[in-house]
Amino acid sequence: MRLSKLFFKTFKENPNETEIISHQLLERAGYIRKLGKGLYIYTPLMWKVIRKISQIVREEMEKAGAQEVSLPLLHPKELWEKTGRWADFTAENLLYTLEDREGHEFCLAPTHEEVMTYLVSNWVTSYKQLPLNLFQIGPKFRDEIRPRFGLMRGKEFVMKDGYSFSDSPVMMEKQYEAMRHAYSEVFRRLSLNFVIVTAHGGKIGKGKSEEFQVVADIGEDLVMVCQDYASNVETTEAIPPPFTYASVEKEKKELPTPNVSSITDLAQFLNVAKELILKTMIYKLTFADKEEFVAIGIRGDRQVNEVKVGSHFSATEVALATDAEILGLTGSKPGFIGPLNLKLRFYADKTCKAMKNFVCAANIVDIHFINVNWGRDLPHPECDDFLLAEEGDECPHVEGGVYKAQRGIEVGHIFNLGTKYSEKLEATFQAEDAKTQPLWMGTYGIGIGRVAAAMVEQLHDEKGIIWPLNAAPFKIFITFATSKNPALVSKAEEVYTQLLEAGLEPLLDDRDERLGFKLKDSDLLGIPFKIIVGKSFTEEGKLEIESRKGEKQLIDVNDLLSWAHTLK
Amino acid sequence: MRLSKLFFKTFKENPNETEIISHQLLERAGYIRKLGKGLYIYTPLMWKVIRKISQIVREEMEKAGAQEVSLPLLHPKELWEKTGRWADFTAENLLYTLEDREGHEFCLAPTHEEVMTYLVSNWVTSYKQLPLNLFQIGPKFRDEIRPRFGLMRGKEFVMKDGYSFSDSPVMMEKQYEAMRHAYSEVFRRLSLNFVIVTAHGGKIGKGKSEEFQVVADIGEDLVMVCQDYASNVETTEAIPPPFTYASVEKEKKELPTPNVSSITDLAQFLNVAKELILKTMIYKLTFADKEEFVAIGIRGDRQVNEVKVGSHFSATEVALATDAEILGLTGSKPGFIGPLNLKLRFYADKTCKAMKNFVCAANIVDIHFINVNWGRDLPHPECDDFLLAEEGDECPHVEGGVYKAQRGIEVGHIFNLGTKYSEKLEATFQAEDAKTQPLWMGTYGIGIGRVAAAMVEQLHDEKGIIWPLNAAPFKIFITFATSKNPALVSKAEEVYTQLLEAGLEPLLDDRDERLGFKLKDSDLLGIPFKIIVGKSFTEEGKLEIESRKGEKQLIDVNDLLSWAHTLK
Repeated sequence: MRLSKLFFKTFKENPNETEIISHQLLERAGYIRKLGKGLYIYTPLMWKVIRKISQIVREEMEKAGAQEVSLPLLHPKELWEKTGRWADFTAENLLYTLEDREGHEFCLAPTHEEVMTYLVSNWVTSYKQLPLNLFQIGPKFRDEIRPRFGLMRGKEFVMKDGYSFSDSPVMMEKQYEAMRHAYSEVFRRLSLNFVIVTAHGGKIGKGKSEEFQVVADIGEDLVMVCQDYASNVETTEAIPPPFTYASVEKEKKELPTPNVSSITDLAQFLNVAKELILKTMIYKLTFADKEEFVAIGIRGDRQVNEVKVGSHFSATEVALATDAEILGLTGSKPGFIGPLNLKLRFYADKTCKAMKNFVCAANIVDIHFINVNWGRDLPHPECDDFLLAEEGDECPHVEGGVYKAQRGIEVGHIFNLGTKYSEKLEATFQAEDAKTQPLWMGTYGIGIGRVAAAMVEQLHDEKGIIWPLNAAPFKIFITFATSKNPALVSKAEEVYTQLLEAGLEPLLDDRDERLGFKLKDSDLLGIPFKIIVGKSFTEEGKLEIESRKGEKQLIDVNDLLSWAHTLK
Repeated sequence: MRLSKLFFKTFKENPNETEIISHQLLERAGYIRKLGKGLYIYTPLMWKVIRKISQIVREEMEKAGAQEVSLPLLHPKELWEKTGRWADFTAENLLYTLEDREGHEFCLAPTHEEVMTYLVSNWVTSYKQLPLNLFQIGPKFRDEIRPRFGLMRGKEFVMKDGYSFSDSPVMMEKQYEAMRHAYSEVFRRLSLNFVIVTAHGGKIGKGKSEEFQVVADIGEDLVMVCQDYASNVETTEAIPPPFTYASVEKEKKELPTPNVSSITDLAQFLNVAKELILKTMIYKLTFADKEEFVAIGIRGDRQVNEVKVGSHFSATEVALATDAEILGLTGSKPGFIGPLNLKLRFYADKTCKAMKNFVCAANIVDIHFINVNWGRDLPHPECDDFLLAEEGDECPHVEGGVYKAQRGIEVGHIFNLGTKYSEKLEATFQAEDAKTQPLWMGTYGIGIGRVAAAMVEQLHDEKGIIWPLNAAPFKIFITFATSKNPALVSKAEEVYTQLLEAGLEPLLDDRDERLGFKLKDSDLLGIPFKIIVGKSFTEEGKLEIESRKGEKQLIDVNDLLSWAHTLK
């Protein structure tokens, strides 16, 4: 391609409303252009990158035995009602819905479990046809409440989504592992620094699931990583630093605590460790058909993990109760809520079980109890894991493992769905023993646009993007030092033609501009190599080659193709 | 690929609700599966075909200098209001519209003139950046009133759409010609028997436009073809067989014509040629903001072309008035409407100008006039071309040209848009003389799915599909005559591996089925070549090769690769 013909535009300044590097660079270098909130145009440069990433994904999928299909984006409501997800998604306004001319309702696909299962269930009848793994690469739609960061979180985005169908948990697990391996290969080939983390299934499923997180400071996810295990903090199991409670139960007392509502103030006021305080939070849980309030107790030095609360109760939404709601439910206010005399279902994080002689609020403003004990002053609570993990916590999965916190960009997600969807959609097969059974399903996604953004986030410098060779829109940038010297111009043209014919995807900057200006554009665009036809060519017949990372070399013009072929 | 692993299913019978061969075969052979009205799933076989066609399109576009992009499918209403097309499309209920969570309105893209112009207008400022040609390949949406024929007319479909931007009518024309050539190349490479026809711009534009019509009996379009010129009947200019009218004007008379309302009956009743009768039709014209009725006169032996009526008045819809509407407007009824004493705007087809002493109805039931003459009995009418061309008409574009009627499938459409969109969207550039001018635009579309269907429609036999080599999902089908002979099975495996490694996209039928059953599937799927490892291999070390069209040959196993490479 000749730069003079390429539809592109670079900008000196970062565009408005761009908070993160990848978004800034992709807009500044003219890879994307905003059409509306969360809606981006992919220009020729970006689309080349997207197609290259897609091709790598396709190759790894096919190596793993998956087959490519393409499903409609308009999905009939009836199908989504069978799985209950029409209600789930619309409850959060995430679904774009519309009616056709006859009044039939459809949604724009945010994911394709329903349609893929519909397809497979009609054609797969016997265990002999299994396993089956189908994928597609194309647009998806989510009416995000806060689209941001360019391609990181859009309302319309390019995804690879895949679905496996198996005859048993064992075959399902094999499919899962094959996809886990294929995903690792994809991200490895794209030079991404990623970590596989145990995850929460979210709206997709509750079975085993893992995320592929690219390590980056601006990542929207918090990931807890120990030596041999990583998980999204939404789901991290952790053992907080231990605390030794007295073994003898003391007498429970009621104390005035005027205006002392925060844990820090209370610990100071009573001169006790935070670990001795039982904090009680009231949450509003939203379900498809109702709302409900629950109280969750947690050790005073720690926070409640709201995703775990949602999972425990299978709620579609979890929100802290407002002051007004708390007043209505307890007659008290935040900071003065406790499990004693509480007219709400109460649950506690399992670390609370060990608490003795603890402090808790009395549901009366400015009053707390001290020396409260389970079993004596109130029943032993129903416990589960509601703890939000923190850096320094112990990892229960790895002997001696201690968590570090990292931020990550979720670029891939794999799920073992079990038979959740196949049962609801009546997708069955005949097993070897002739019995009819539901299909075992897995679902696997890669955010293609997000991968591109993550690559930029991870590899860039003050000059611009640094693409790895196999995702770059062009591999080699060629230009002449000055257009005033026809010998340089014609040699650059010759180099361009040679590389073009050799399939090396060169970009010839044939513009009549200063060399420095042209090289700046090349750096901003992130082209892996630059070839400059200049002084060295005139003086000694050599081409100046510079990698995007700055390594320079001179090669003889006759060695051009042998050098270039090392890039293939 | 091994057939035992391929996700496919063939059917013995034609599926329900499939009227045309391509729809029947694509469903029977498991290429597509219906999700809903006008919504189809592309299975692995179909998606391979779609990707191959897309790749040929991409290559020809790039050869012509076009660059690939990808635009969002959700388009903000505001942009479509600027061109007036939000109203145009919604007037016919063709647009899928929806609201996001904030109540902003969007449509699902049926075409991308608005968004493409938005993109280009922001980046192109100077004539130096022109011409520019951008295209994409992806989904489009139209809420068709009558989706049918499988991939021929769907509500969601895959299209290549491209847009050119030029600095002048001359450059625009060059871009148009480049696309005309590129499209011809695409359809030629896909072995389609097509004709380029002058067309009506429809909702897209009113400038020059041509359609690429694949000749096929089931085509939804009627095309008038003479020796050197072809056009869609919607727009065909034609000279009907001449008729000699008397030169002397006779006395006008009123005659009772009881119950004689059809032209045929009237001609018989009065014993005159149909050419002597002026037929008057009343049409309801729909505009964005109003409805209006007009009367159109046409020679009695001919029909009115409603598309020409719509064009003449720039109406969004043209419909014959109902009996009730006619009664309200004239007090009369169909068959008894004429231009005399008519309280409606009256226009006539230009062939009516020559009529003398003609018959027309009196707007009174059961009454006609005879010997009516323009200028004497009523004013000379305002005329235009409202004639529906018929086979046998003369072609005004070609000396001695006579039209034949053919049915066609519109697979491509190219438009010279002029500055229609750029003016409305304020897409301007600075010309060489430093003046600001609107961009000259062209728009070009190929229905990728429809191309696939047209290929099947054009080339098939009683056994199934016949794909040309470069669009077939697999090029070569391989199987063994019987699984009971391990030597045959292992040789077939070896042939498969060899062809796979040579990049020849083989499909190995490794199923333990009868040979005839397997070959039937291969024929139904339309694979161009079959290799059978059977008796000839056992007896003389030869492979039986049969083309899908039935040519058979035996080749030595050692000549396999040299034969196969002739297919590349």
